Amino acid sequence: MAIIESIPNVSEGRRPDAVERMASAIRGTPGVRLLDWSSDPSHNRSVFTMVGDAPALKAATLALFECAVAEIDLRAHQGEHPRVGAVDVVPFVPIEGATIADCISLAKDVAATVAERFAVPVYLYEDAATDPARRNLEDIRRGGFEGLREKMSSPGGAPDFGPSQPHESAGASVIGARMPLIAYNVNLNTDRLEVAKKIAAAIRFSSGGLRYVKAMGVMLEDRNLAQVSMNLTNYQKTPIFRVFEMVKREAARHGVTILESEIVGLVPAAALMAAAEYYLQIEGFSAQKQVLESRMNTAD
Amino acid sequence: MAIIESIPNVSEGRRPDAVERMASAIRGTPGVRLLDWSSDPSHNRSVFTMVGDAPALKAATLALFECAVAEIDLRAHQGEHPRVGAVDVVPFVPIEGATIADCISLAKDVAATVAERFAVPVYLYEDAATDPARRNLEDIRRGGFEGLREKMSSPGGAPDFGPSQPHESAGASVIGARMPLIAYNVNLNTDRLEVAKKIAAAIRFSSGGLRYVKAMGVMLEDRNLAQVSMNLTNYQKTPIFRVFEMVKREAARHGVTILESEIVGLVPAAALMAAAEYYLQIEGFSAQKQVLESRMNTAD
Repeated sequence: MAIIESIPNVSEGRRPDAVERMASAIRGTPGVRLLDWSSDPSHNRSVFTMVGDAPALKAATLALFECAVAEIDLRAHQGEHPRVGAVDVVPFVPIEGATIADCISLAKDVAATVAERFAVPVYLYEDAATDPARRNLEDIRRGGFEGLREKMSSPGGAPDFGPSQPHESAGASVIGARMPLIAYNVNLNTDRLEVAKKIAAAIRFSSGGLRYVKAMGVMLEDRNLAQVSMNLTNYQKTPIFRVFEMVKREAARHGVTILESEIVGLVPAAALMAAAEYYLQIEGFSAQKQVLESRMNTAD
Repeated sequence: MAIIESIPNVSEGRRPDAVERMASAIRGTPGVRLLDWSSDPSHNRSVFTMVGDAPALKAATLALFECAVAEIDLRAHQGEHPRVGAVDVVPFVPIEGATIADCISLAKDVAATVAERFAVPVYLYEDAATDPARRNLEDIRRGGFEGLREKMSSPGGAPDFGPSQPHESAGASVIGARMPLIAYNVNLNTDRLEVAKKIAAAIRFSSGGLRYVKAMGVMLEDRNLAQVSMNLTNYQKTPIFRVFEMVKREAARHGVTILESEIVGLVPAAALMAAAEYYLQIEGFSAQKQVLESRMNTAD
């Protein structure tokens, strides 16, 4: 079975009963597992993590829209986080047996249905974007719900699906596809913050480093340790082990060793398998055929 | 869900229709997946690989016994492989969310039921053995079906469950629990077989090396490469990465580097995850909570 993850963000984080009804809408969809959800009252926003195959996730997303559009009125919404819609963002992420192409198809299919069924305009973003200017979520969301009507009527402001004006109370939604994001930190055997900052600058894409790495140097005050804090945005093309080795190499330049690394939150098994294969120099290995747990999930 | 693997061996490998009926008995059991099976006509023996939780595997094993006891008559059986029973050996192996203790309980439960329902005497072996002298399969099986009646009536020959005489046509069965076995080879950047042999001697348990390693040096004639060929019998206590590092270290002593390694057949995901954690120096990681695929298999 092709497994896809979706992490919808909704603009409601202060009424637990309303958020619980949205969680129930997801949980009540056959074939979908709600792995996690959390609300941030100061952002007035909630995030759900769910997995399933494409048809099940489509059904769960529509159920979530139905509930959120009824529950949330953005005209009365306050919160620090930028947002344009009741269901603000919906990314689809390939996990196992699914490709980014599968997730792009799913995003477009869901977007068309949402626009038609709820009269909510939808913008496609990231790998599902139809225009490079629409890849970045921040660009689409700039101006927020309040600036949406004006933005939508200016040149290049039309959505990919649905009406050319915002939904009265639910605004617009941003739906797309992206690779799994891995939050990965490396703690250095030093309290010299400048070393962490130099390493971050060396390895991140924005200043000339690896293509799918975002990085910054930070101080872990309670432990008096410098940390290279990273987001890996495509573990298949810029794998964890290559990032780790590059951090180690750069640290050595400053006479510093690695104390430890940490993975924050969820990680696809394949990202760790790839590291095992690399370091153990394993040739001719097929995770799908040889890892027992994978074999159990594939057809006879 | 706790996932256990079982690899029953039956004394029939020459009549494909009979083996197919046994495979069907397993396949027909709800909650069990038959991952693989193969027959060896010269050994007149077949091996099935199946997975499921404890109750499902118990049901599948009983279904297999029912079929095999009806199909196989050891009085007419010929084959090179040592054997004592129609269903000769049944190991239970912990894979995910299950412990060796769970597998020992399952082995004893299945053994008791088999003895009662089919009047087949059962010996417990490996980690389920009630006596250290019965840990080794080879020791229990010595003398084969032909010597069984005499062996069972001699001191210390009584089975753990069932009658004190062999079943007329089905002999006796050996049921137990063990850790997964990983077939792991390291190919050296050399054609010097003696180097592979020295490394094998250094790392294997029998000559003073790591506790859960069996190893020998062999020549890959077609590639003109020396190989350290290994069985890792407890990857939790003697992990792959430690074995690999020790082989690498010993090879360096002879001026030899590692060309590549290979995993033959199936491997539990945890064995590779542990290697990733080791080399990436990952601290505070929980595969069960953080690996997406594992999260999908655990309860909400």
